[in-house]
Amino acid sequence: MPHIQLPEGLPGIRGPMAFSPETAKPLNELANALLQTDDGLSRAERELIATYVSSENDCFFCQTIHGAVASYYWGDENGEFVKAVKENYGLTLISSKLKALLAIAGSVQKGGKQVTPEQVHEACLQGATDKDIHDTVLIAAAFCMFNRYVDGLATWAPENPELYKFRATKIAEYGYTADDHYMPR
Amino acid sequence: MPHIQLPEGLPGIRGPMAFSPETAKPLNELANALLQTDDGLSRAERELIATYVSSENDCFFCQTIHGAVASYYWGDENGEFVKAVKENYGLTLISSKLKALLAIAGSVQKGGKQVTPEQVHEACLQGATDKDIHDTVLIAAAFCMFNRYVDGLATWAPENPELYKFRATKIAEYGYTADDHYMPR
Repeated sequence: MPHIQLPEGLPGIRGPMAFSPETAKPLNELANALLQTDDGLSRAERELIATYVSSENDCFFCQTIHGAVASYYWGDENGEFVKAVKENYGLTLISSKLKALLAIAGSVQKGGKQVTPEQVHEACLQGATDKDIHDTVLIAAAFCMFNRYVDGLATWAPENPELYKFRATKIAEYGYTADDHYMPR
Repeated sequence: MPHIQLPEGLPGIRGPMAFSPETAKPLNELANALLQTDDGLSRAERELIATYVSSENDCFFCQTIHGAVASYYWGDENGEFVKAVKENYGLTLISSKLKALLAIAGSVQKGGKQVTPEQVHEACLQGATDKDIHDTVLIAAAFCMFNRYVDGLATWAPENPELYKFRATKIAEYGYTADDHYMPR
């Protein structure tokens, strides 16, 4: 049961966002600026970073919805690839650059000061630009917020993976928005 | 030295914000929505929560600038009150309600799932509304993001407290904005 009275039937972050539209607006705009662009890092890479950090933070709702969006972009029909990245990305076939960025994201998840010059150097060696590193740090930091918002209020989340899969297609099409009249409840 | 090449002379979060204006916009809007309002919790209480979480995350820039803003609102000329809150808020003369909310914020800092029903119950007993609890959780979560953004990029911060004190008066007047032509560099 959520810690506060939230609008019913809205899973995960959508409950508190409906409760507080004035903060939902910049939160959705931030999600769009960070995730709905292929400028530098692709949408596929950005959603994978978001999913990985949410998994490290043990946030079921965020890792499931962003995992579904990542699977959509990566053509990962059964979700096995995203699952493998969460379990041990070092063993997957993602690029060395993305592995180096996920290492940075993993450090940010633990705390800002955990990021080392060596991690940044390695990412640069693998072709990451300053913008890639900036975006990785801010995506990881932002999900340390989103995950805490979702779990800090003990929000409800459905278990059926098909719901997340369906919503993922809508996010890919429309972006992150509070205006989700097309969403199943 | 920052991990990436940032515009020079801009302290703390202002370097990455100048580097990435498209994400600075929603970040500043979020800060204003969370901190620049007296709806429910006062600006003074909101800044104190932000300062406390930034202190728990050991983020020098954020705890110093938001501490200066908190001191401004609380009439804490020498900063001793804010220092006491960071060290052990339980021993200060803040309200029982604010103490209960700071306990929730402290849990959010550790992780969303650390917030307990007992903490929320105690806050309600002390007069906190659902909105107060929502705002506390989101302020604490947001500063887990801001702190990681600032430290994850190893940004530079000046040490002179007078600079923060001056900037605090401007934040109180103008709010959080990327447009800081009135700022000393």
